[in-house]
Amino acid sequence: MVNSRRDAHRRLTVEARRDQLLSVGVELIATRSWDGLTMLDIAAAACVSKPLLYHYFSTKQDLYRAAVRSAAEELRLATRPDEAMRPQDELRWSLEAHVDWVEAHDAAYRTVLQGGVSGDAEVQAIIERSRTEVVDRIVRSVGLELAPPSLRISLRGWVGFLEGACLEWLGTKDISKVELVRLLTASLPAAISAAR
Amino acid sequence: MVNSRRDAHRRLTVEARRDQLLSVGVELIATRSWDGLTMLDIAAAACVSKPLLYHYFSTKQDLYRAAVRSAAEELRLATRPDEAMRPQDELRWSLEAHVDWVEAHDAAYRTVLQGGVSGDAEVQAIIERSRTEVVDRIVRSVGLELAPPSLRISLRGWVGFLEGACLEWLGTKDISKVELVRLLTASLPAAISAAR
Repeated sequence: MVNSRRDAHRRLTVEARRDQLLSVGVELIATRSWDGLTMLDIAAAACVSKPLLYHYFSTKQDLYRAAVRSAAEELRLATRPDEAMRPQDELRWSLEAHVDWVEAHDAAYRTVLQGGVSGDAEVQAIIERSRTEVVDRIVRSVGLELAPPSLRISLRGWVGFLEGACLEWLGTKDISKVELVRLLTASLPAAISAAR
Repeated sequence: MVNSRRDAHRRLTVEARRDQLLSVGVELIATRSWDGLTMLDIAAAACVSKPLLYHYFSTKQDLYRAAVRSAAEELRLATRPDEAMRPQDELRWSLEAHVDWVEAHDAAYRTVLQGGVSGDAEVQAIIERSRTEVVDRIVRSVGLELAPPSLRISLRGWVGFLEGACLEWLGTKDISKVELVRLLTASLPAAISAAR
């Protein structure tokens, strides 16, 4: 019991430690210039030793990618409607959850979509995969297995709409969240109609 | 007349030389890994000496930014409707021009929006400014001076729609250009309605 703080840290399971490091990663992506950070800075921010950090992530870029992947997965889970939900409520509920998540992760959302090291090809692939998942979810929700090309293109466009509108809203917040959700909810059927 | 090739190059005006270097820059951004390029590589690709290249751009990043700025300006000019055009034709015409430009600059468009060194804050600012210009142009075309917040947010969303749909279309081209332009033309009034 020489170092109780270190002992406390040791008590985390591998998975819990990884999760903790990932959330520190998301926090740092949001608030610091990632290029300027060293693995030592990241270890210090997470209150772990550098060797322990390296045990989980072999490079800074690995950690960045894993943090973006984990944030994308968190957003996906947060916006997945309950199966018991009435179909007519799903879209609004899911968009409300989306806007709540985006607002809670404001800086990280902007950094990943607009800057930081998001030029990294693997990060772009993670982002693009999560866009495709949104498209697929909508396609299934309208009762299709596979979207015809024009619908797929329009829905991918709509994911861009969702991102663009959220980014603009985060910058000014000059309409209420309720109004934003209403606008987004109205824009999806409009995008589906445009594909016809 | 010892070196006629060099002489030929010397005949370019400062502005023409700069334009030539910028188009080589856009070409390299589209086709090569920018991180792996040196100023010497760029000078070689442009058939100029390294000192001459440095005379125009003091760093590789300067050249990247100037190339993105010039491409954004080119797109803006290419899609600006003629003042003599009937208002009801302007949108379709402008979107046709947009899709033509995007198709002609396929690789550069994708690299700048999805990868390369687009995490650079100044490049992001250039891209964001050109999005704002599209929003402003639409706002003026519907006879307003200033958009109410919900319309501005929806139009910024629509610019995301335009980009997302174009990127998806470039990846598969499984609908015709005419069909894509029709889809885009239908999506704008839909986005305006969603803001009401």
